[in-house]
Amino acid sequence: MPWSLEEVFKHRDAKSCWVIIKNEVYDVTEFLSKHPGGPSIILKYGGRDATSAYEPIHPADAIQQNLSPSQRLGSLREVDIRDLEAQGKRRERTKDEMRVEQAMKQRPPLNRILNLADIEDVARKVLPHSALAFFSAGAEDELTLRENARAFDRILFHARVMRPVSKCDPSTKILGYHSSLPVFVSGASTAKLGHPLGELNITRGCGTANIIQMVCTYASIPRGEIAAAALPSQTLFFQLYKSTDITVATKVVQEAERLGFKAIFLTVDAIVITTRERDVRSPWVLEAQEGTSQHYVEGDSDEATNLLGTSSLHVNQNNILDADMSWQVTIPWLRSITKLPIILKGVQCLEDAVLATQMGVEGILLSNHGGRQLEYSLPPLEVLYRIRQQKPDVFDKLEVYVDGGIRRGTDVIKAICLGAKAVGLGRPFLYALSAYGEVGVSKMISILEREIVTSMRLLGAGNINDLTPELVERVDWEPVGRQYKL
Amino acid sequence: MPWSLEEVFKHRDAKSCWVIIKNEVYDVTEFLSKHPGGPSIILKYGGRDATSAYEPIHPADAIQQNLSPSQRLGSLREVDIRDLEAQGKRRERTKDEMRVEQAMKQRPPLNRILNLADIEDVARKVLPHSALAFFSAGAEDELTLRENARAFDRILFHARVMRPVSKCDPSTKILGYHSSLPVFVSGASTAKLGHPLGELNITRGCGTANIIQMVCTYASIPRGEIAAAALPSQTLFFQLYKSTDITVATKVVQEAERLGFKAIFLTVDAIVITTRERDVRSPWVLEAQEGTSQHYVEGDSDEATNLLGTSSLHVNQNNILDADMSWQVTIPWLRSITKLPIILKGVQCLEDAVLATQMGVEGILLSNHGGRQLEYSLPPLEVLYRIRQQKPDVFDKLEVYVDGGIRRGTDVIKAICLGAKAVGLGRPFLYALSAYGEVGVSKMISILEREIVTSMRLLGAGNINDLTPELVERVDWEPVGRQYKL
Amino acid sequence: MPWSLEEVFKHRDAKSCWVIIKNEVYDVTEFLSKHPGGPSIILKYGGRDATSAYEPIHPADAIQQNLSPSQRLGSLREVDIRDLEAQGKRRERTKDEMRVEQAMKQRPPLNRILNLADIEDVARKVLPHSALAFFSAGAEDELTLRENARAFDRILFHARVMRPVSKCDPSTKILGYHSSLPVFVSGASTAKLGHPLGELNITRGCGTANIIQMVCTYASIPRGEIAAAALPSQTLFFQLYKSTDITVATKVVQEAERLGFKAIFLTVDAIVITTRERDVRSPWVLEAQEGTSQHYVEGDSDEATNLLGTSSLHVNQNNILDADMSWQVTIPWLRSITKLPIILKGVQCLEDAVLATQMGVEGILLSNHGGRQLEYSLPPLEVLYRIRQQKPDVFDKLEVYVDGGIRRGTDVIKAICLGAKAVGLGRPFLYALSAYGEVGVSKMISILEREIVTSMRLLGAGNINDLTPELVERVDWEPVGRQYKL
Amino acid sequence: MPWSLEEVFKHRDAKSCWVIIKNEVYDVTEFLSKHPGGPSIILKYGGRDATSAYEPIHPADAIQQNLSPSQRLGSLREVDIRDLEAQGKRRERTKDEMRVEQAMKQRPPLNRILNLADIEDVARKVLPHSALAFFSAGAEDELTLRENARAFDRILFHARVMRPVSKCDPSTKILGYHSSLPVFVSGASTAKLGHPLGELNITRGCGTANIIQMVCTYASIPRGEIAAAALPSQTLFFQLYKSTDITVATKVVQEAERLGFKAIFLTVDAIVITTRERDVRSPWVLEAQEGTSQHYVEGDSDEATNLLGTSSLHVNQNNILDADMSWQVTIPWLRSITKLPIILKGVQCLEDAVLATQMGVEGILLSNHGGRQLEYSLPPLEVLYRIRQQKPDVFDKLEVYVDGGIRRGTDVIKAICLGAKAVGLGRPFLYALSAYGEVGVSKMISILEREIVTSMRLLGAGNINDLTPELVERVDWEPVGRQYKL
Repeated sequence: MPWSLEEVFKHRDAKSCWVIIKNEVYDVTEFLSKHPGGPSIILKYGGRDATSAYEPIHPADAIQQNLSPSQRLGSLREVDIRDLEAQGKRRERTKDEMRVEQAMKQRPPLNRILNLADIEDVARKVLPHSALAFFSAGAEDELTLRENARAFDRILFHARVMRPVSKCDPSTKILGYHSSLPVFVSGASTAKLGHPLGELNITRGCGTANIIQMVCTYASIPRGEIAAAALPSQTLFFQLYKSTDITVATKVVQEAERLGFKAIFLTVDAIVITTRERDVRSPWVLEAQEGTSQHYVEGDSDEATNLLGTSSLHVNQNNILDADMSWQVTIPWLRSITKLPIILKGVQCLEDAVLATQMGVEGILLSNHGGRQLEYSLPPLEVLYRIRQQKPDVFDKLEVYVDGGIRRGTDVIKAICLGAKAVGLGRPFLYALSAYGEVGVSKMISILEREIVTSMRLLGAGNINDLTPELVERVDWEPVGRQYKL
Repeated sequence: MPWSLEEVFKHRDAKSCWVIIKNEVYDVTEFLSKHPGGPSIILKYGGRDATSAYEPIHPADAIQQNLSPSQRLGSLREVDIRDLEAQGKRRERTKDEMRVEQAMKQRPPLNRILNLADIEDVARKVLPHSALAFFSAGAEDELTLRENARAFDRILFHARVMRPVSKCDPSTKILGYHSSLPVFVSGASTAKLGHPLGELNITRGCGTANIIQMVCTYASIPRGEIAAAALPSQTLFFQLYKSTDITVATKVVQEAERLGFKAIFLTVDAIVITTRERDVRSPWVLEAQEGTSQHYVEGDSDEATNLLGTSSLHVNQNNILDADMSWQVTIPWLRSITKLPIILKGVQCLEDAVLATQMGVEGILLSNHGGRQLEYSLPPLEVLYRIRQQKPDVFDKLEVYVDGGIRRGTDVIKAICLGAKAVGLGRPFLYALSAYGEVGVSKMISILEREIVTSMRLLGAGNINDLTPELVERVDWEPVGRQYKL
Repeated sequence: MPWSLEEVFKHRDAKSCWVIIKNEVYDVTEFLSKHPGGPSIILKYGGRDATSAYEPIHPADAIQQNLSPSQRLGSLREVDIRDLEAQGKRRERTKDEMRVEQAMKQRPPLNRILNLADIEDVARKVLPHSALAFFSAGAEDELTLRENARAFDRILFHARVMRPVSKCDPSTKILGYHSSLPVFVSGASTAKLGHPLGELNITRGCGTANIIQMVCTYASIPRGEIAAAALPSQTLFFQLYKSTDITVATKVVQEAERLGFKAIFLTVDAIVITTRERDVRSPWVLEAQEGTSQHYVEGDSDEATNLLGTSSLHVNQNNILDADMSWQVTIPWLRSITKLPIILKGVQCLEDAVLATQMGVEGILLSNHGGRQLEYSLPPLEVLYRIRQQKPDVFDKLEVYVDGGIRRGTDVIKAICLGAKAVGLGRPFLYALSAYGEVGVSKMISILEREIVTSMRLLGAGNINDLTPELVERVDWEPVGRQYKL
Repeated sequence: MPWSLEEVFKHRDAKSCWVIIKNEVYDVTEFLSKHPGGPSIILKYGGRDATSAYEPIHPADAIQQNLSPSQRLGSLREVDIRDLEAQGKRRERTKDEMRVEQAMKQRPPLNRILNLADIEDVARKVLPHSALAFFSAGAEDELTLRENARAFDRILFHARVMRPVSKCDPSTKILGYHSSLPVFVSGASTAKLGHPLGELNITRGCGTANIIQMVCTYASIPRGEIAAAALPSQTLFFQLYKSTDITVATKVVQEAERLGFKAIFLTVDAIVITTRERDVRSPWVLEAQEGTSQHYVEGDSDEATNLLGTSSLHVNQNNILDADMSWQVTIPWLRSITKLPIILKGVQCLEDAVLATQMGVEGILLSNHGGRQLEYSLPPLEVLYRIRQQKPDVFDKLEVYVDGGIRRGTDVIKAICLGAKAVGLGRPFLYALSAYGEVGVSKMISILEREIVTSMRLLGAGNINDLTPELVERVDWEPVGRQYKL
């Protein structure tokens, strides 16, 4: 029996909460407490059409996978479907949508893009306000976000001259898999916010360029679709957000292995989600821009826990993320359910790097989640530097990667010189696909390649093994370097 | 016999000085030299109605307590009372008053307040100019004020991962009293300038949240009223400004003990008052804003001592504050008149911290009076760091607290990691109550709690004891951090 | 025989150069090469009335003393005198003169002056452009000027509490002479540019306040007049610019001793004069402001030596200043002609400080001439710090003074803590007298006294001997401190 | 047979590419791949008149020397020559040309030029946009460009006083050749972009002043002409860009020796050319200024290798520059074909400085190509400082020079104090000749001389040998110094 809008609208609170997605009606009452993004964002759309909020963030099959058959209540009435469509057409476009449309027309041609900052500039113009806020935000005052990048400015080169470098090969192996550059895609998810094809743009761009992509548990494209889009020779890694529900967690890992992902990057720096204030404020800023802000009312409800739920993009802490992972339990469990190599994503200090070698994992990704989690976490490059200075044998025992703040070929080279096997980039891939789709991703990789190869030659390095610690120095002054955009 | 305005006006200089407060006439001639705020501010109102200047700063009973019966001359005549009222009504509101009224209407709702800086932003808009100047001012060029805060930016975290933290308890004990957070209210007085209920807002907000309030000798609400407003289980501490008059000093301490305050924080960094230039200039700025500034006259009188008296908010140095306190005399005296634990508020270097352990006090509060006293005093966090590096056994001998520049949960955690038992916040409480009253105080505490708990979890800390020195590093570069508002 | 303007105008080049000063005609042809300010500035006025350029810089009797009777050619004709006067009256006032007049009327009253920066602000408004340029200029890019001041910001205090300081005495002895503060006037000459009474304002202000003034060889008021204006009990020191002409040099020193000056500060950092670009550019800036700039002409003459001569305020290097002074010759010579103590003004490094102790002088003034001479000279406070760290016995062997960048009471205290016997201030005295005359000088000293005494008390220091090295720390970060005005 | 424009226009792609230069037609099809500036810039003018692009960059004889007789196809028809001329006259002048013309008229007279920054200011105004972009550009974000200069700000002086310096001689010997200052011209080529007489302005200005010029392989004036313009006593050095073609390379070196150049500076830091983004963007900026920018077209071709070719000023990597030079092969080869001393230009670290001593070259020029090559290369002054601190015997084994960021006499002195035999300046010479031609070069040298001599005297140094390491200190804070213009 098809549903009427009127009937659906009766179910709009926590006691009974229905939503319409693509003209289908769902009962999400029970799901409220399981929603990784928290209940409040769903309740905001309770009893109403939630398609526009659902689509840019979720894989198409997400709702099917999470609801039981009885919770899929059936279709909307034809007359109401037409009604919704008519509403959609009548709806005036927002100022932000018009701005984006205009900006898309004025994008510079790709051959005028010289570096990753140029791509980011375009993306900042063409992204919807809320998507930009989500992509660009860091924790709290974004000090960590800035410091991640600034750390690279303190590392200068001791370039060597008179070394034959007409042949220069920047390729390497990561966990044994060939990579054309010592670079991989790290944690670039929710890509549909920036482009309808979402993460697939990355998959395709990386396939051509022979770069490895790490695919997130919360990718906005179904993992299977991403795996299917990969070339036969293409390597994909899997970024695991471990659920507290061990059954769910096991299923996710085993599915990833089955789909052909080659390694599990276990996320350890995001067991709870911190406040990314830029992101939380985004709807208020937009509201003010559109002139739709409500008069302020005294006595508005105010709960800290609500706060994190106002943004649908947060994976919240409704016991969905496992905050009780431990070295003793979690790693043996993971080892027991998969043969894939295990890498800890989000190691933030020397002590944990050493501990990881003792626990026998295959690698660690030094990362503070791109400055999106613990504010004042030491920049990953500084952690790498401390390992190099104090415990260089770590590099012999497992592979060490770094992400956070990498924007230039010289940044990549510095990390490799200090001992990293490869480096991850996240936001730059999201900016590239938002600005130009798949071709933007390809362009971005080709820029990195040009920068890496040119700088390697000028350093006197003909291949990755020539990039040694002697080529870099951490100086005791502060170069006037990059200005992190805010 | 009721007095006429005409008669009162005859007594307007240091030889005979009367003032009217709430329609009562007082002879303050003898009191001039005893006024903690200095004689000049009283003389400014000599022979006139001083109610508007008196009320926002003084406890209601202050004048009664300080004058003898013969100095309370009696009431004003009915006709003159009506005359004053009429004058009050005729008086045009100042631009500053109109600005404040408008700003109060435009305050954002509480659920749009994300952090303490947001609250401060609101307070800066809704506070009268002179109140803001008094609250926000630091000594001289306010370098110390800024450096207090900047010191926190140089401390970064070595976050630990894979530690179970779904349960996370930020509570602690301060001098044996339970506190829901390692945070207390330090030196936030004269609160009536920001809200009619003054310090009571703090008392009530802290009562609900289980946070300890330190109440100042010069609170703008009678101490008895504050003590009465506390919940039965609520802990209050007392901040003592020791008078040179030993009888007065003894009476104050013993009254505090009788009222149920649980500790005496002896103020040692404010034996004389330095020039807070922002505060001194405030009436001139206001004058210019209102368009009431006089033509400048050559030969205006100019005495340095006058200068400090132009602001009624200063406790001046008319021998009221004891500038001759000493380790040998003052501590034994205090010990002899009270059983309460003694904490020195305003220790500014390692040497005095060590000396305090030898003198057997129960605690020290590392503080430079929020940057309001000695310009170029080492930031309290840096003093704490030096104790940790050079004399860590201090932490075993007494409780160490820190205040100055703390605005984020991460700031609190850094101090605790370095060995502080708890930290004090002052101005943020004043801003919170000025912006939103008691609910502002509650909001502020809940923000701190959220920030502290989230950051503890991301650090791998499940309770206060997990916050150890290994989790922090003082880095050798200068992160681009907070900008202290001016 | 009185001269006609027409006749005088015939003598306007280096072959025969006459000038008119106060209606008297002088033949300065031979004097051209002896003019401390160089010949070109005189030639600019050759054959014409030079009174307006002569008066603000020179002691009234300078021309008499430097010319022989035969070079004093006699008076101008009455008719020409009247002509000059009429010209003077007809002359339109410049924009700069009008600006100054207006600014003088708008000066704030003295009781609104809180600190030395306030006085400087007033002075910058009321000084003629060229005078301000001369007073404020530093060498080349003025880096040294800025760094002199910034050095103080890196020194923070370890304040001691609980020390009796109700009595606090900031007085000291300098070379055995009593001084109410550890402060003296250093190198503040050419004061007539800022006030008609020139250096006399300082003499009188210091007399009342019991502060020692150092009087320059090139003071704009005759030394005898200054000495005569001093109180009987007042101490004056003499700043010697040693002439290459040993007869002249001897005469100057012996006259100073006869006039009652109590010490000879031998200037050793200004044997040649560097380019103070702000000062050199001043007439061009003024020209542009007044709209009197000439069309630019290709092929203008250009000699580096000319350059320094364009400003009449420079003491140039026409062999007038002795660039061949040496430890072996100059000090014994000076000792042989005077009994006064000898202080080297302009010592700029530890090595020379040590050498000075070996040569037996009574004192050294660590100074780089207020940033007006060698660009990139180490800030004097840093030199003092190095002496304290590396050769503290220097302080036992002679008195050490510091000048450069001192603007606050805390600056004074820091230098004293590090071992200086007293500090010198120069520009602040010039700004004070330019802004308010003698009363400005008094005000400035009273501000310093208030700041010094308050800060001493808050440091726990009851007198100068309590100011020890333990009270200060040179920190390893850069406080965000004073902004040096440009 | 004279050619028609129509016929020439048929040959405009890589298969058959003709260009017209000064009315002569050339077949450059085969030369495309040998063009040091890459093929794409030639192709842009394929089939058309290329004179305006060719002339400002190339020696007049370049095309003759590089093409065989059969590739010189003969003249254009008279009628077409007149047609081209008419086109040239009809062509409207660009906004940039008009700006430049206006700016040339408004240049300040030379006697208002006080320092090298003044000259640069003029040059920035009078240079065509593209020339300025080429001269001023650094690699990528120009961090290295800025840091080269900032390094000097961290070196302060320990000035010595009381040393006889009335005689002060700044002259020295460089590789045994007399130089009036410890300064030479380093890498200032392509000078015709700034002045029609190109590098000849430098040759003449240096001849008069007795300063040594290093002349580049790619000078825009034929080397023979430059050699011929030198005074008999004048010393010239040769900057070699070694070709991969050993015959070409040998010929170039031997011609240089024959022309009388006295040393070979082998360029080792520019084996490939990095992206100078400011330069690459220059035509786009100009296009926007002129209003001639095309509508952006999606799908524009985009190849990284193209990118470097868009600017004709780059020497590209078409195997023309030898990227396989080595210590073992290249130095013996060079030694075998010339008797001239060999200096390595572009040594960037201590390790290579030591290696150079072992290889027996006569000197090294510490340089990172003026910040135009490897971004984040250690500033040359810092490399010099490391040699002084860690391997001072290097200075005994060969001559060490420095270039990069030198703009003041104090900069020169600092490098000499640290052990450099002399310093090179590049851009300042280009700015000087662009602004004022030969007289600008002379002026620039005279400013440097004045600054060097004045500062030497104030340091207590009478000659170059007095400039010792004890006179300088690398401080541990960051002086607020020069702002590098962007």
